[in-house]
Amino acid sequence: MSDPRLASLRAALPGLRLLTDPADLEHYGRDWTRRWTPAPLAIALPDRVEDVQGIVRWANDARVAVVPSGGRTGLSGGAVAANGELVVSLERMQRVLGVDPVDRTLTVQAGIPLQRVQDIAREHGLQYPVDFAARGSASIGGTIATNAGGIRVLRYGNTRAWIAGLKLVTGTGELLELGRALIKDSSGYDLRHLVIGAEGTLGIVVEATLSLTEPAPSGQTMLLALPGFEALMAVFALFRARLRLQAFEFLTDVALRHVLAHGGGQPPFAQPAPYYVVTEFDAGPDAEAEVLALFEQGLQDGVIVDGVLATSQAQAAQLWRLREGITESLARYVPYKNDVAVRISAMPAFLAEAQALLAREYPQFEVVWFGHIGDGNLHINILKPDAMTQADFVADCDRVTKLLAELLQRHGGTISAEHGIGLVKKPYLWSTRSPAEIAVMRGIKAVLDPNGIMNPGKLFD
Amino acid sequence: MSDPRLASLRAALPGLRLLTDPADLEHYGRDWTRRWTPAPLAIALPDRVEDVQGIVRWANDARVAVVPSGGRTGLSGGAVAANGELVVSLERMQRVLGVDPVDRTLTVQAGIPLQRVQDIAREHGLQYPVDFAARGSASIGGTIATNAGGIRVLRYGNTRAWIAGLKLVTGTGELLELGRALIKDSSGYDLRHLVIGAEGTLGIVVEATLSLTEPAPSGQTMLLALPGFEALMAVFALFRARLRLQAFEFLTDVALRHVLAHGGGQPPFAQPAPYYVVTEFDAGPDAEAEVLALFEQGLQDGVIVDGVLATSQAQAAQLWRLREGITESLARYVPYKNDVAVRISAMPAFLAEAQALLAREYPQFEVVWFGHIGDGNLHINILKPDAMTQADFVADCDRVTKLLAELLQRHGGTISAEHGIGLVKKPYLWSTRSPAEIAVMRGIKAVLDPNGIMNPGKLFD
Repeated sequence: MSDPRLASLRAALPGLRLLTDPADLEHYGRDWTRRWTPAPLAIALPDRVEDVQGIVRWANDARVAVVPSGGRTGLSGGAVAANGELVVSLERMQRVLGVDPVDRTLTVQAGIPLQRVQDIAREHGLQYPVDFAARGSASIGGTIATNAGGIRVLRYGNTRAWIAGLKLVTGTGELLELGRALIKDSSGYDLRHLVIGAEGTLGIVVEATLSLTEPAPSGQTMLLALPGFEALMAVFALFRARLRLQAFEFLTDVALRHVLAHGGGQPPFAQPAPYYVVTEFDAGPDAEAEVLALFEQGLQDGVIVDGVLATSQAQAAQLWRLREGITESLARYVPYKNDVAVRISAMPAFLAEAQALLAREYPQFEVVWFGHIGDGNLHINILKPDAMTQADFVADCDRVTKLLAELLQRHGGTISAEHGIGLVKKPYLWSTRSPAEIAVMRGIKAVLDPNGIMNPGKLFD
Repeated sequence: MSDPRLASLRAALPGLRLLTDPADLEHYGRDWTRRWTPAPLAIALPDRVEDVQGIVRWANDARVAVVPSGGRTGLSGGAVAANGELVVSLERMQRVLGVDPVDRTLTVQAGIPLQRVQDIAREHGLQYPVDFAARGSASIGGTIATNAGGIRVLRYGNTRAWIAGLKLVTGTGELLELGRALIKDSSGYDLRHLVIGAEGTLGIVVEATLSLTEPAPSGQTMLLALPGFEALMAVFALFRARLRLQAFEFLTDVALRHVLAHGGGQPPFAQPAPYYVVTEFDAGPDAEAEVLALFEQGLQDGVIVDGVLATSQAQAAQLWRLREGITESLARYVPYKNDVAVRISAMPAFLAEAQALLAREYPQFEVVWFGHIGDGNLHINILKPDAMTQADFVADCDRVTKLLAELLQRHGGTISAEHGIGLVKKPYLWSTRSPAEIAVMRGIKAVLDPNGIMNPGKLFD
């Protein structure tokens, strides 16, 4: 606490909780990426909006960079503080500010975890449909910062679709109330959508009003084994045309074997197949007969080789675990993650080229594919061989990611589907956004954050 | 064609079609508002993106203001050219650029009318669900500029929800390709959403990729007679809880009488009621029994006084005409239009105060209410007495709109739900957006349009 800048912060905001212990600096200075050494100046833990504004005003005066911090489950380094920044953690701002059953909205402070929001919605007979495996730790503010996707996008869209309003402390400390939960508002530029996905570079989201919806119809879960990627697209088209899909996720046999090795359990089928799909669709009087007919047709067409339809909640959960357990099963390898998307129609051509590229460039690495076919979103995890240093491994993967980015550019895709750009994808932003677009983004940042103190170095330099 | 600036434009773009006839200047210089005298410099009718870019570059050099122009069905003066601007009409840019059945997208030039888009979607077994009465003339570009709403927002959302991508010629003549029809893309600021609803002040939308969806389930249409506004909210809650609503529109008895007087036809019920609802909901095996039970319950609760369930397509169309015919039936009065919204939960308190305000301030004017209850959106049309001059009438209505704006501000509402701000609502923007927000909007405009040539004077000065 000897830094004179912190003394001035404490003088400006006497009640503010500040942490400077080395263990705290390390804990709050990094996210789920493990590539940078945390080195923040200090950690601020405000418990009210006015203090967040006060911190930002102080940071402008003191010219200290600010890193907004939620659950730090991000995978692109968007919440990393490695350069003497002040981390502003919202973990003390988790209050529920109101539930409105008529408007079907839930207003919360931005530090609240996603899972808590899902639970509150459920307690009111409603649903907050954004969902992904890190739900227990990820904060609502973080999901807004990255426009988080997840496993229900096929049915419900990304986080963007569920943010009825938000409050933003801008880079100058102004408080903007954006959206205000109006269903219709055609009164100038929609700054709310500008903030969603901005990765904390325009300000700090301190509150959000979330739209809730009716609970999903009860679903049936099925695991399918497929002979190849073309079959995956064919089965997706077949199922989408005849069932109300809630999810349609794929994984490769390599991914399945990691999940089974890590979590235990038997292979789901007697014979392994190169691809598996976990799909969930609306249950209903005709759904079971329909899906069995589709399954038979898939077998005859040679696009399905095996399958199992869950007959209980427990079995459905077991099938889902095969998909949701992947990230955890790979954690010990500190995988290098790509999170790319193309239009669904561009998927077959892109994937053929991408597979050839990775097979050629990574002959020595194990590559684990999985993702959200219905959204055009592929996750590619490259596993570090034990014998290789982390630095050499990342350098080699960065080299190949540049080639992948060129491929994505040719196919009109994106280098970040749902993780954000942060530090990790920043070198490849050119593949997804044109120089003119990036220039506009820089200009907009300068409007909301003229001194460039908000999460500098993330997204672009 | 004697203006030397036009000579320079013609020299820069020799193939460009330019109109300067007084009749053309009048035709293209105004929209459905009839409050300003059209006085454009000329009308440009480009037929390709490069020419739109060329026009904008020329306009920067010549310091001539540009007014983007679609179907000019706008109600806020957003497409009015009354100050020597160059109108850039997209009416020669109506080409269909592609339909993708896998991505379920339709790519069009921005001048194409909404109805043509709806028809093309239908021909492919799909639906473009944005819909409103001016569908035959309104261009897709115009619907994007205002984030148009309409009669299906309750089920499908505003235009914003259906724009998978767009191409924008910015105020400097750069072409930006935004969104690119990716379902997931977390790669920096979403400039596409910034452009949607910007009323042509950031650039000209020249192409759009529209999301299509499955056709709506076949609907049943019902007309209800209600004893008061509280009943309207109660019936909405009752019906929303038990039926899958596609639309829930209301009108007052005054509105109904205008439609019948204008278009002919008999009153739908033996006794008039103060409010009517036209609602459409998914037909289905149980829907008819359900709606009759709801109707009985409404009668018993005293919130419904009469009703009719359409038993044929023709009857459904007849009931819909009672709602959709309002604007046309009022056209001869050149009504002063308010288009306001509040959160649904704020509706009863707001409406009580708004009705008292208008009754007090407009004792001599006929006021026609209708709108989209499920979206919190009320249309208030004030009819000019024949004996009053247009100028006096507008001045008096402007005075009351200021009071209405103050009321909206207190209830967290908006002065423009779906028509846009344009020239008409510009004096009241303060009621909906804070000074800090407006400052940010101005800053963003300066980034995309540094010389301020794009639709100047619209939205803000």
